[in-house]
Amino acid sequence: MDESLRLYSYWRSSAAYRVRIGLNLKGLAYDTVPVHLLRDGGEQHQDAFRAANPQRLVPVLQHGGHVQRQSLAILEYLDETWPEPPLLPRDPGERQRVRALALAVACDIHPLNNLRVLQYLERRWQVPQPEREEWIRHWIGEGFAALETMLAGDPATGRYCHGDAPGLADCALVPQVYSARRFGVDLGPYPTLVRIEQACLALPAFAAASPDAQPDRPA
Amino acid sequence: MDESLRLYSYWRSSAAYRVRIGLNLKGLAYDTVPVHLLRDGGEQHQDAFRAANPQRLVPVLQHGGHVQRQSLAILEYLDETWPEPPLLPRDPGERQRVRALALAVACDIHPLNNLRVLQYLERRWQVPQPEREEWIRHWIGEGFAALETMLAGDPATGRYCHGDAPGLADCALVPQVYSARRFGVDLGPYPTLVRIEQACLALPAFAAASPDAQPDRPA
Repeated sequence: MDESLRLYSYWRSSAAYRVRIGLNLKGLAYDTVPVHLLRDGGEQHQDAFRAANPQRLVPVLQHGGHVQRQSLAILEYLDETWPEPPLLPRDPGERQRVRALALAVACDIHPLNNLRVLQYLERRWQVPQPEREEWIRHWIGEGFAALETMLAGDPATGRYCHGDAPGLADCALVPQVYSARRFGVDLGPYPTLVRIEQACLALPAFAAASPDAQPDRPA
Repeated sequence: MDESLRLYSYWRSSAAYRVRIGLNLKGLAYDTVPVHLLRDGGEQHQDAFRAANPQRLVPVLQHGGHVQRQSLAILEYLDETWPEPPLLPRDPGERQRVRALALAVACDIHPLNNLRVLQYLERRWQVPQPEREEWIRHWIGEGFAALETMLAGDPATGRYCHGDAPGLADCALVPQVYSARRFGVDLGPYPTLVRIEQACLALPAFAAASPDAQPDRPA
């Protein structure tokens, strides 16, 4: 059986970025298969990719012939298959906290600002670009305000989202902060998020996963 | 320590419905604390609830003094704390599949149609109700088409989303089908989803979790 890891990725996808961080934290080598979300109407809509993921979203991870979808489910798989270093703490209550932080990004911020949603706003309702960007900043702001409260007010927060080792919540947070910077969100009200982001980006696993370090990044 | 379980819930919330199913599948008794999402501008925005969840979203589960947020993270906690009957299979690859199915609902359908998003469309952009409902049906349709393909084409699908015992993916799917019915989605193209929904609703754990069976349902 082919045990290699192949990641269908797009350099600027938040969800793919999460999985790249996870693979790097585990020290796993993988091949990148770029899926260009904008070229030719979007390569994610073409039959070849659609067969791998009927949702037509990146990332997809292939491992041993199995096709895996959904970034957080992929990260859990990585953590169960290669337990060291762990992405989740051992205590069920602490695991709950870390997963909830990751889901606050992955459910309640990112899907609202995903490419397909912005395309709907533009094509179906002709929402002008400034208002689309206001929409993006609104949902990031809603989510970040809650996350700042949850992180700043909890002694379980350490150098990273949970304690002093990076984990699942950091895999979700850092790409979302990248996206916030891209869309001009004022990060002043979220000092804890920025502090954790900076601590993460100082680690090679995060730096190498950055959109700016991807092979499919335009020159 | 107070070991009782207290669920902050709203009868028609999909995310609260997921957790109610999980609690019932585990055979756990719990108290319902209704949070009326529409009354007085939304009780979720009031200080008392906001202190429990800065995201101002239901559900929240209190267990032993700990406050838990995010429905899927709560369900994972229930599964780790009360392992029988399991909500997830044992094999990491199978767990990946089940989590991905649940996340396809919890990330890529439900957050787009959540109350706060519909309120934004109405209040910020004055999107008329028929177009808001078209938006709802669009994202449910996108998600259900993908789920139908993923479930119908996979021998791992059984009586339920994964095999012949209900689990995490069913906890996510059934509330979303309820919501689809509420908004008049044509379910004809999704026979596998409807078959699984009906199999689930035949179980007391699902039936008792239904919005129509909740104490805060209007008369």
